[in-house]
Amino acid sequence: MPQMNRQIQLASRPTGEPGHANFRLVETPLPEIGDGQVLVRNHFLSLDPYMRGRMNDGKSYAVPQALDTVMGGGTVGEVVATRSPAFAVGDKVVGMGGWQEYARVDAGLAGMLRKVDTRHIPLSAYLGAVGMPGVTAWYGLVKLIAPKAGETVVVSAASGAVGSAVGQLAKARGARAVGIAGGADKCAYVVDELGFDACIDYKAQASLGALSAALKDACPAGVDGLFENVGGVCLDAVMLRANAFSRVAMCGMISGYNGQPIPMAAPQLILVNRMKFEGFIVSEHMDCWPEALAELGGGVASGKLKYRETVAQGLENAPEAFLGLLKGRNFGKQLVQLL
Amino acid sequence: MPQMNRQIQLASRPTGEPGHANFRLVETPLPEIGDGQVLVRNHFLSLDPYMRGRMNDGKSYAVPQALDTVMGGGTVGEVVATRSPAFAVGDKVVGMGGWQEYARVDAGLAGMLRKVDTRHIPLSAYLGAVGMPGVTAWYGLVKLIAPKAGETVVVSAASGAVGSAVGQLAKARGARAVGIAGGADKCAYVVDELGFDACIDYKAQASLGALSAALKDACPAGVDGLFENVGGVCLDAVMLRANAFSRVAMCGMISGYNGQPIPMAAPQLILVNRMKFEGFIVSEHMDCWPEALAELGGGVASGKLKYRETVAQGLENAPEAFLGLLKGRNFGKQLVQLL
Repeated sequence: MPQMNRQIQLASRPTGEPGHANFRLVETPLPEIGDGQVLVRNHFLSLDPYMRGRMNDGKSYAVPQALDTVMGGGTVGEVVATRSPAFAVGDKVVGMGGWQEYARVDAGLAGMLRKVDTRHIPLSAYLGAVGMPGVTAWYGLVKLIAPKAGETVVVSAASGAVGSAVGQLAKARGARAVGIAGGADKCAYVVDELGFDACIDYKAQASLGALSAALKDACPAGVDGLFENVGGVCLDAVMLRANAFSRVAMCGMISGYNGQPIPMAAPQLILVNRMKFEGFIVSEHMDCWPEALAELGGGVASGKLKYRETVAQGLENAPEAFLGLLKGRNFGKQLVQLL
Repeated sequence: MPQMNRQIQLASRPTGEPGHANFRLVETPLPEIGDGQVLVRNHFLSLDPYMRGRMNDGKSYAVPQALDTVMGGGTVGEVVATRSPAFAVGDKVVGMGGWQEYARVDAGLAGMLRKVDTRHIPLSAYLGAVGMPGVTAWYGLVKLIAPKAGETVVVSAASGAVGSAVGQLAKARGARAVGIAGGADKCAYVVDELGFDACIDYKAQASLGALSAALKDACPAGVDGLFENVGGVCLDAVMLRANAFSRVAMCGMISGYNGQPIPMAAPQLILVNRMKFEGFIVSEHMDCWPEALAELGGGVASGKLKYRETVAQGLENAPEAFLGLLKGRNFGKQLVQLL
């Protein structure tokens, strides 16, 4: 085992768009473990849009990431040292190890570390389809949108870790699934590989009106449910196609993460169409995780629930991969493999 | 009984702000009644903001008002001729008689006409606190906001027929009630007569920031529920004070009724604060009316639920009163007494 750990810290807070200068790669001594603790070698680090919000100091749902400390984040890895009776060396685990190669974990605290079974599900999937993004998709779709067979569900960022699961879960419930994604390749994947009924390339639409017209073609019976990951024009366009009593699960608004205004053009449609909007954070609904993970894990193990990963290699490439994620350069779940 | 009826018809659709030219006063023959029908002499006509939406041709929740026909609207009155076993001459009734002195009603159709008891409740109250506005307040507050004791509820257009009931119903449930109204006299009434904890005069606030600051003073523990009648800056300001898991009942957006854009400035707050927004129309929730009317009627009969009326005199003054309502010139429920 090496003597040193490597980690990425938050060096400064971004003004507007973040950049490499906001991150710092540091070497720190490998932590020693005490009673009840384990040392985990992280194999994969999850990069997620919510991390952008934590880089700011302002009010948000997540506590701000502290400066000069390791960036927080979900990880999967392997126990390499243990002083906890609950974990053995070699156990595969999922936790919040952060942007670093090794993490010391208080194994006794509820929810800190969970042993996972990699016989039928790849380890990395526990950061995506069978992890937080998958449960996020499941909660918003099943609990908030609750589509009936024959209804139409639209999801933005459709090729992403959350969006790809939303559409497939909607299809499994007999709904029509329509994606919005950036680029022809992503749209082709969403329809051809994931089985959505249609996918609209928002980058190919010149205006709100054009996007709304494309949605009209893709959703001939209107929109009954929207799983919103993007906000801005995407949200405005879908609202123009919303049916009476439609439901919007507000999961993310990545279009506004750098502080630019993203007004909702026509909130009166909430009233006109008797819509229901609900913002949520999946970590506040832990009671739903077992049911969600059972469906998601079964889907991945059987091959029915498909997903795609973009894997950056090496901790030092995590900032670049994260900045790319914020620009939509990833394709599916963005991971960093820690070598 | 006279030979002629008088009614106000929709003469043309407004472009932007409506005016007198959009209405026409006509004399028509008094209708003859057939089997199962009754003739009602309308005593009071209800004027309501939703009528503005029906003057437009565009998509809204209500079917557009047809041109060259009598303006629709709620009325209370007295049966003056009957060929229905369910109604006797002299019965006091509430229905949708429209902007006219006499209305012929198919008494057998469910929901068309309801006999009311005026021993303890004034006839006109069935158009306000014990009618559609009262049930609107009740449904949005009780079913959508569902305040717990100690929570803070804000309502815009607080001195109006709906808003005044919202705050009083919230107080009865142990919540803090804060109003937003236009003018010092309305605010004084809301606090001194209706018993709200505070009321903010939005006309005295120069900017979104000033209104938000005033809300901070009036809602020291933040806002848990918003009953929205106005939209625009009022909504934006309250959203800046919203607590986690706050609920917004979207009832009206009178600030945008003439077609001007009323964007929501910061929809990301729905996500950040895990808010729930729900648009509703009270006529789609008829199952709640009995429970709501029982509480509202009891409150009015006992004098606990207070309300105020502005009463225009004579059918010919209905358009002027309606135009004034849209500008907030009324104080409490706007009625027209048909002489």
